[in-house]
Amino acid sequence: MSTIGPYSYDASILEKALEGKKGGKVLVQLPDGVKRFASEAMYHLEPYLMNVHIWGGTCFGACDFPNLCEYDLLIQFGHAPIPGVGNEKTVFIPLRRRIIDDSELVMALANTFGDERPSITLVSTIETTHDLDRLADVLHSHKYQCVVPDVIERSYEKGQVLGCNAGHLDIKTDIAIFIGDGRFHPLGIALSNPDIRIFTFKIGNTKLKELTQDAERVVRIRWAIMENAKKCSRFGVITTMREGQNRVAQAEEALLKLREHGKEAEILMTEIVDIASLLDWDFDAYVVTVCPRLALDDSNRFHVPVITLQEMHMILDGASSSSYTFDTLS
Amino acid sequence: MSTIGPYSYDASILEKALEGKKGGKVLVQLPDGVKRFASEAMYHLEPYLMNVHIWGGTCFGACDFPNLCEYDLLIQFGHAPIPGVGNEKTVFIPLRRRIIDDSELVMALANTFGDERPSITLVSTIETTHDLDRLADVLHSHKYQCVVPDVIERSYEKGQVLGCNAGHLDIKTDIAIFIGDGRFHPLGIALSNPDIRIFTFKIGNTKLKELTQDAERVVRIRWAIMENAKKCSRFGVITTMREGQNRVAQAEEALLKLREHGKEAEILMTEIVDIASLLDWDFDAYVVTVCPRLALDDSNRFHVPVITLQEMHMILDGASSSSYTFDTLS
Repeated sequence: MSTIGPYSYDASILEKALEGKKGGKVLVQLPDGVKRFASEAMYHLEPYLMNVHIWGGTCFGACDFPNLCEYDLLIQFGHAPIPGVGNEKTVFIPLRRRIIDDSELVMALANTFGDERPSITLVSTIETTHDLDRLADVLHSHKYQCVVPDVIERSYEKGQVLGCNAGHLDIKTDIAIFIGDGRFHPLGIALSNPDIRIFTFKIGNTKLKELTQDAERVVRIRWAIMENAKKCSRFGVITTMREGQNRVAQAEEALLKLREHGKEAEILMTEIVDIASLLDWDFDAYVVTVCPRLALDDSNRFHVPVITLQEMHMILDGASSSSYTFDTLS
Repeated sequence: MSTIGPYSYDASILEKALEGKKGGKVLVQLPDGVKRFASEAMYHLEPYLMNVHIWGGTCFGACDFPNLCEYDLLIQFGHAPIPGVGNEKTVFIPLRRRIIDDSELVMALANTFGDERPSITLVSTIETTHDLDRLADVLHSHKYQCVVPDVIERSYEKGQVLGCNAGHLDIKTDIAIFIGDGRFHPLGIALSNPDIRIFTFKIGNTKLKELTQDAERVVRIRWAIMENAKKCSRFGVITTMREGQNRVAQAEEALLKLREHGKEAEILMTEIVDIASLLDWDFDAYVVTVCPRLALDDSNRFHVPVITLQEMHMILDGASSSSYTFDTLS
């Protein structure tokens, strides 16, 4: 194992990828939170004497790597590969966080549930999945029933959730705990599992944060935005060249469906969806077929309704407001 | 001639480009100011029944079109082709502004110079170059010596200036007038021709705006930024995949030169340079080898020194502050 900043990774993946690649043109991609450790990452590549550039743009996931025409190899540190995304030129090297202090999680559960023993589903991003089985054992020893879900579609490891694939999670326990930061992943789980109580556990805390009310509020906001979108007449259907989020076929279907419902619509192809760039168009609503995070996390930053592909289907099909469907990529 | 919003264009370029292309996959690109007329542009393509997507991202010039792997044709409305940039898949259709009321320019000259008759060089962006010869004739009839410069490198028409190629303009008259909006183009001209008085004439006005003091102020600011950059130790050298601004070879040279001068440096490859994305890195200065507009127009939006390629050479070579060189693309 090697380290970059506070993360560790399996050096053998890197070694294997670079074998026989001396002199090749390599692009290195780092997620935003790791960019400040770029020197360290480059230092690890030095022994291989590659012709290395750093990718200066976004890296929201293994779904978000640029076109590689000019490069022989992409090395993305951070995210795990998404099965079926990428090719022989792409190498994804998961970065792992240091081991969680299990006493914190036990304490957090006691703080919320006292002597109660709800059955638990444990999930996280790739940063912590390597630690989930051990945590489950610890919770078992404290008399909790605890499940780490099997690999779901688009995931690489047991217990891993991407957010955009939360709809593939079928949770059968009383509660689910998402270990990690950020709101998008657990919110996706909550929206896809409205009958289960979903909690976030941030490493270094001794409290769980419940998402149930938050998710209910988000669903109410989504319906309000969808109601506004219903009244709009000109839709931009946003899709992307990024292979891992490229749902062009679905965008084309959405276009036809919107037009069948008397709406004007055009397809907007992008590399990355930049909120500022939407300001210049005269569309009065947008359907986002790319990462659902955009509509969900950034909804209040848009000046017009921005809805997911699922939400578009819901309003055009006249779905009832009790049956919200979270947009899930497959 | 056809029109899109307040612009007109030569429809025969479009017809010729689309001949025999029925069923092909076409990407349409519009500059920010034209995006709100997207429906009109799409309406013009309807007779050809193409499989058309709109480009949702930036379009800062004919230098700024995306990778076309998935498309058979790009139609960019707005900018003129840059000789040598693009390929058999790219079609650039200049958009022209309606004819200038020549009495306004004559009045503007009288307002600034009274009975004086300075010799004049007339330049503009592609929006107005078609009108420059007529304007020159009008000015001749009012006893002004007036020159419309020949085509310079990267330009498509007589009198056209892109900004990034302003350094190729060799002005021999007393003054130069840039007809159009924005500050980057005339500023580039002023920085490249410090001994000539440069004016901007905005259509619909009866006043000239002199750039001389502005340019002097900008040069002072640039030297202050360059002085700060000199003290920095870690440089990100920004380059781009965009063919029309792709100076990778120069970026590689810059990297070596920085390292020879004891600086740490890495190359950052981008699609578009997004200021926000620079915040995540730990470089303490950036060298921009792409459009010089970024360093010049946006300098006060950066948290660290961002300098042009020319500016980097100036500080490493120890140039004197009296000899500022504007970054010019070729």
